[in-house]
Amino acid sequence: MAGKIKVGVLGATGIVGQKFVKLLEKNPWFRLEIVAASEKSVGKVYGEAIRGSGENFSDEIKELEVKPLNPKAFRNEDVDIVFSALPSDVAYQIEEEFAKNGFIVLSNASSHRMDNDVPILNPEVNAEHVDMIDEQRKKRNWDGAIITNPNCTTAILTLSLKPIYDAFGLKRVVVSTMQAVSGAGYPGVASLDIIDNIIPYIKNEEEKVEKETLKIMGLPYQPANFKISSSCHRVPTIDGHVEAVFIETEKKSKPEEIIEVMRNFKGIPQKLNLPTAPNPPIIVRFEDDRPQPRIDRMAGDGMAIVVGRIRYDKVFDCVKYVVLGHNLIRGAAGCSILNAELLKSKGYI
Amino acid sequence: MAGKIKVGVLGATGIVGQKFVKLLEKNPWFRLEIVAASEKSVGKVYGEAIRGSGENFSDEIKELEVKPLNPKAFRNEDVDIVFSALPSDVAYQIEEEFAKNGFIVLSNASSHRMDNDVPILNPEVNAEHVDMIDEQRKKRNWDGAIITNPNCTTAILTLSLKPIYDAFGLKRVVVSTMQAVSGAGYPGVASLDIIDNIIPYIKNEEEKVEKETLKIMGLPYQPANFKISSSCHRVPTIDGHVEAVFIETEKKSKPEEIIEVMRNFKGIPQKLNLPTAPNPPIIVRFEDDRPQPRIDRMAGDGMAIVVGRIRYDKVFDCVKYVVLGHNLIRGAAGCSILNAELLKSKGYI
Amino acid sequence: MAGKIKVGVLGATGIVGQKFVKLLEKNPWFRLEIVAASEKSVGKVYGEAIRGSGENFSDEIKELEVKPLNPKAFRNEDVDIVFSALPSDVAYQIEEEFAKNGFIVLSNASSHRMDNDVPILNPEVNAEHVDMIDEQRKKRNWDGAIITNPNCTTAILTLSLKPIYDAFGLKRVVVSTMQAVSGAGYPGVASLDIIDNIIPYIKNEEEKVEKETLKIMGLPYQPANFKISSSCHRVPTIDGHVEAVFIETEKKSKPEEIIEVMRNFKGIPQKLNLPTAPNPPIIVRFEDDRPQPRIDRMAGDGMAIVVGRIRYDKVFDCVKYVVLGHNLIRGAAGCSILNAELLKSKGYI
Amino acid sequence: MAGKIKVGVLGATGIVGQKFVKLLEKNPWFRLEIVAASEKSVGKVYGEAIRGSGENFSDEIKELEVKPLNPKAFRNEDVDIVFSALPSDVAYQIEEEFAKNGFIVLSNASSHRMDNDVPILNPEVNAEHVDMIDEQRKKRNWDGAIITNPNCTTAILTLSLKPIYDAFGLKRVVVSTMQAVSGAGYPGVASLDIIDNIIPYIKNEEEKVEKETLKIMGLPYQPANFKISSSCHRVPTIDGHVEAVFIETEKKSKPEEIIEVMRNFKGIPQKLNLPTAPNPPIIVRFEDDRPQPRIDRMAGDGMAIVVGRIRYDKVFDCVKYVVLGHNLIRGAAGCSILNAELLKSKGYI
Repeated sequence: MAGKIKVGVLGATGIVGQKFVKLLEKNPWFRLEIVAASEKSVGKVYGEAIRGSGENFSDEIKELEVKPLNPKAFRNEDVDIVFSALPSDVAYQIEEEFAKNGFIVLSNASSHRMDNDVPILNPEVNAEHVDMIDEQRKKRNWDGAIITNPNCTTAILTLSLKPIYDAFGLKRVVVSTMQAVSGAGYPGVASLDIIDNIIPYIKNEEEKVEKETLKIMGLPYQPANFKISSSCHRVPTIDGHVEAVFIETEKKSKPEEIIEVMRNFKGIPQKLNLPTAPNPPIIVRFEDDRPQPRIDRMAGDGMAIVVGRIRYDKVFDCVKYVVLGHNLIRGAAGCSILNAELLKSKGYI
Repeated sequence: MAGKIKVGVLGATGIVGQKFVKLLEKNPWFRLEIVAASEKSVGKVYGEAIRGSGENFSDEIKELEVKPLNPKAFRNEDVDIVFSALPSDVAYQIEEEFAKNGFIVLSNASSHRMDNDVPILNPEVNAEHVDMIDEQRKKRNWDGAIITNPNCTTAILTLSLKPIYDAFGLKRVVVSTMQAVSGAGYPGVASLDIIDNIIPYIKNEEEKVEKETLKIMGLPYQPANFKISSSCHRVPTIDGHVEAVFIETEKKSKPEEIIEVMRNFKGIPQKLNLPTAPNPPIIVRFEDDRPQPRIDRMAGDGMAIVVGRIRYDKVFDCVKYVVLGHNLIRGAAGCSILNAELLKSKGYI
Repeated sequence: MAGKIKVGVLGATGIVGQKFVKLLEKNPWFRLEIVAASEKSVGKVYGEAIRGSGENFSDEIKELEVKPLNPKAFRNEDVDIVFSALPSDVAYQIEEEFAKNGFIVLSNASSHRMDNDVPILNPEVNAEHVDMIDEQRKKRNWDGAIITNPNCTTAILTLSLKPIYDAFGLKRVVVSTMQAVSGAGYPGVASLDIIDNIIPYIKNEEEKVEKETLKIMGLPYQPANFKISSSCHRVPTIDGHVEAVFIETEKKSKPEEIIEVMRNFKGIPQKLNLPTAPNPPIIVRFEDDRPQPRIDRMAGDGMAIVVGRIRYDKVFDCVKYVVLGHNLIRGAAGCSILNAELLKSKGYI
Repeated sequence: MAGKIKVGVLGATGIVGQKFVKLLEKNPWFRLEIVAASEKSVGKVYGEAIRGSGENFSDEIKELEVKPLNPKAFRNEDVDIVFSALPSDVAYQIEEEFAKNGFIVLSNASSHRMDNDVPILNPEVNAEHVDMIDEQRKKRNWDGAIITNPNCTTAILTLSLKPIYDAFGLKRVVVSTMQAVSGAGYPGVASLDIIDNIIPYIKNEEEKVEKETLKIMGLPYQPANFKISSSCHRVPTIDGHVEAVFIETEKKSKPEEIIEVMRNFKGIPQKLNLPTAPNPPIIVRFEDDRPQPRIDRMAGDGMAIVVGRIRYDKVFDCVKYVVLGHNLIRGAAGCSILNAELLKSKGYI
């Protein structure tokens, strides 16, 4: 398509980078022009540089030459929108360099998420935070911008909380997660550590879930003020994070009311008809035994979340439920692509 | 050993029944004399009647003839103590028949657990409930007795809560579980349903966890009055249930205090030096990533629980932790055998 | 589509039955009109009658009423083509009843496969066997016909052998399989039996592989006369059978020659451009570590097989390779649907 | 035990190194005195240096200080027997240095296995090869010695072939393997690569199996002259390699004869009553569905192999069977420890 906007992917060889590439292959608004990665991949063709073998790419994609993580390489190709799947340790500096050089950086890295002037954007939840980049540009004196998507677990959780928060307010949230191995990247979790096993710990994850959730669900620059606590666990599934959620709402609420607001929920992306926006964004299921990762993770092409077992909870005299989302799509690459679509529809791109 | 007490197992061919048989093989106080099961197994040798092939039994055990579920068959062999691993639907009536005929029935079935005069005994937690059988005998006018062990998840949970409850009291408990497939018996969970998957539902499990916990942790005939809520999930592990627990104590408590009381805890079985009593009953681990089912489930020969990640929780301004136990041993057969040892030391056997 | 041919599925609620339904949902030549199953499902809507939850069906499909396994029910709806996913024990009689009543029965059941006058049709391999039904009709004095697809392992194996057989002849074939759990139906293999485990036995499978292969690769009524031996094993994968194959050809052959004939192979379905025919039917991969079930099983929409590691073999001074195919699609439902397309293009439908 | 012989382990922190440590903990003849590893572990206590968390070591073991891979460190402690679990790339040089300095090196590394004067010792199979070290010492002019154990797959295979070879001779062997992830060390196989998957390739494995088998089963310096071909695959199991074996014997043989010679087999270690020698070394099972890794891998404390499905094979007009062994015990650390016991009983230690 002639009119597509050219984009690039930073850190394109890892698991999330590959997912960006895969999703961009069919995006109607953006065209993948550049894949970039660290020194050891530069100059190779993409098909040889990628780690693991989870995605079956087209030959065209496989033959792209991997470029360095350098703004110039992108400018030469008239690309000024980049998606970042860089590891957190290098993302901080490289993403800033791109932003300084005028690029819009849509990042899955955690490095900048908690910066005061950087939005964590989950577009059905806090599309209005996008305006924070005006302030960011002023303050940082750059033409580019850094916009992050949430941590995978947080993206799924906050989308499920949004309609509840709007309708009833929130006082407390307790969440325990069962997270798929793809969340740890590649090679990530050793098979010896996870077959017939659970690892009840994911580094920094609980802190991320707790802080990011409040930032996303609050006003710009002002976190929401409910209490949230999480326990995060790795389980032997490939893709799809499951979260058991217990909530206490400000205003009393009942399971049937929660079901109602979840089912009726539409976010800004749905109202704007953005190409990647799932519709509905929240699928409520009524079978006893759903959602299940292997069966439900691709709901809404991996962009919807699936909620089940919405039921009465005695501890908070409120509601508990189970939510599932695709950690690499809704929880990572797909979310940033939807953010880019939002930026375009708002005129930032 | 000449002096061993002869015992039998009802429902000996299922997964829990097999675990009873396996554990009794080496028990110093009891000798397995009779294995009994439903009609279709009666008359076969045990080695051919058992379902699945998880336990490697000795030839002597494999050649035992399976007897009918009939008190007479047991009396003929001078057995008057029976362990029951019967399925709940048939357990109710058969266990009563044995009790009426003077047998002490130590049951893993849920059928009688919530009967007002039947103790659910997790002996480190509520050894004193054993006296309820005096009342039971009077009321039911029988010489036998029915004593149950808790549901697997509850056995593990209540043992972890016991030292906290004693030291600080409890107001609220939120627990999310990741349960192994052996908890569903054999054939149980279809592999097609659980490989690369999670099933966020286990029939009746949440109700059992919530009700049994209060009964066990209360006084005889008077449930404890804290609030408890659970979310139960099946994951692709073989043995060992993991539980993420969030608690609010009556008296303020801190992680280091909770660690202290857990590490120092000894129950009645430890004080009585019962042969099957694990010592310590609660193993506290300080690595970030423990407990893990495959590595830790056999701690204390499967009778100890392993607690890790004891840390501050913001929602209750208290503590959250992760606990693991072997669902078939501490959570089923091993618990009832320890109950039998308690009964013997108290003179009931 | 008005012009689509109406078809029905017998045994529609099992795993293979569901795959028939799923594949027929989008077939351009056939329209699913009737789902039929055993007594206990009749009258229910399909969405409630299905076992397991592996396929996400459309609401339209879920609301189909399940009909009895009775030719009349089908005639009433003007259906005279049926796909059978019946269990072998009932398939024998029911399929004959349909054939007697004039139906063309395309069956995945093993019951009739070794009947002398019934073709086992793997259409890229032995399309010409379709004519056997003329003889079958004469001999059995019926207007209908029974055409079977091969056992899943055999379907994959024979497609890989076909170009070799044509070019070089075959003297000996040794094959060891690693088969996915979906091959055992639902509930099928217990998770307790297969997590962290292998079961080195699948009932009747080795006999089927050995006999069916020779029947398929021979002339009608005259089995091929090479020697074949198999060892079949169940492993913890969901879908996709992997087979390690060692061959000795009549005419000497080298790996590069085998690669050549496999890559260039087209069968009758490809030449006829049948809608479900994968193109190419055999995908040869050159990476060291392919084919892999999770990544490659959907090649050619599950209808292609993927061959890798074609290399020199010392024992037969010939070639060994690894082949993978989707057991439920190429190895079952998809194969019978392609058979139906072949029948239509040959004028039988 | 005062009289135990002091030993050390080189490369003690990896998976095989840990297994050496674990097994030596309870060996009646040897006492583990030194654990040594590469620079980055030296000086740490063993409990902190180990990778992964598969083995639960005693506190005494965990507090051992890790020493450098340097003969002096060992001499200082009067240790002159070392077990090597070094990675192949560094093993070559380090093992020679130890041998030059007079140490007896019992190695699991592949580096020296195919050296003409180094025995690959699987002691039930080729105990007489131990004498090769006399020649080795003369030729290399050192007082120490290098003795290797076979590759894991080969150790299991050759033990199963030994009684057949002795009784009937061998012409051809075809073997397809299903190998556990622990065979790849730690972190080894990524979980993303193996959950719900098979990897039909293990680097250099097929070459090792084919060459080592002939060296072990031949005379010293003269490989056996039958033909052998293998196809090696990684599957999602933790421990225990399964091998499907098809054989052609020199002298005609039938399944019942093969069963007979396998069941009656005793090797030199059994005749010498070596402490680690399993008795019997080969367990033949008659159930249809055995051996299975999770159930059978610890047979004979992991030192026995389990053979099942011994049956007629049409391709070679001979026999096929399935064999299982514990890859880390019989196939690695346990084998070298048994080799050390053999050396002691022969007066080399």
